[in-house]
Amino acid sequence: MRSAGTDTVGGLVFATTTPERPCPAAAPEIAYRIGQGRIPAFDISAVCSGFLYTMASAGALITAGITDSVLVVAAEAYSRVVDPTDRSTAVLFGDGAGAVMLRAGPADEPGALLAYDLGSDGEGAELIRIPEPREQPSGERWFAMAGRKV
Amino acid sequence: MRSAGTDTVGGLVFATTTPERPCPAAAPEIAYRIGQGRIPAFDISAVCSGFLYTMASAGALITAGITDSVLVVAAEAYSRVVDPTDRSTAVLFGDGAGAVMLRAGPADEPGALLAYDLGSDGEGAELIRIPEPREQPSGERWFAMAGRKV
Repeated sequence: MRSAGTDTVGGLVFATTTPERPCPAAAPEIAYRIGQGRIPAFDISAVCSGFLYTMASAGALITAGITDSVLVVAAEAYSRVVDPTDRSTAVLFGDGAGAVMLRAGPADEPGALLAYDLGSDGEGAELIRIPEPREQPSGERWFAMAGRKV
Repeated sequence: MRSAGTDTVGGLVFATTTPERPCPAAAPEIAYRIGQGRIPAFDISAVCSGFLYTMASAGALITAGITDSVLVVAAEAYSRVVDPTDRSTAVLFGDGAGAVMLRAGPADEPGALLAYDLGSDGEGAELIRIPEPREQPSGERWFAMAGRKV
């Protein structure tokens, strides 16, 4: 936020598929910890495409006038769910985090968001997954991916 | 969708805190199963306020012109995480699902969305939670709430 030249932001949207806990959402806690108080804040879960959906949603909240600025945060801790001995995933997935500040501004401003072409493919839902405990009674909830098909 | 008078929709946003699995998101699979193919689809996680944040985000995606209609779906299966012997939660939290179709239209149309006043309070993140396995090595991941404080 310092590099964006502001101390305050109107909302926070957090993209993650590896939150510390399923409930509550992490975005309100992030907002509180960075001193932003009770701003609108929620989590988006969309795995690899999470940052893009979060950017689109955050930008749309500004366009719709619901807030005038949004801090988009994305973070994953795949080291928690990746089996370090599984070469099909361990060499590709790790931990990382980033953040982007979005604010209202003229459409022709440098850096303005232009357009999105978003999509999904639910037919392949089985091809990449973190199993639930009941699917993996051994307790090992390793992330699995059918790499070539994905 | 039938009652909304349409067979197709431009996007789907799904609010849940109790997904069947953390990865992949459920929205693309819902979109696929209801015959909507590869539309933009993602999950939002915000517990009780999930439906409101999802309505606001879905409406904003339409206002911003990213899509012309969105199916907002919200579903929770709290029976999976609520301890049936805990009277502070078991009498309040259960399972349920609902859906609303949003589409572009005139601002003065009956049923048009007017405005939102959204907020959060991350300071209270410890007051209501589903623990992660490492927090509860016994394997019982019961949802817990400090009722009076919440």
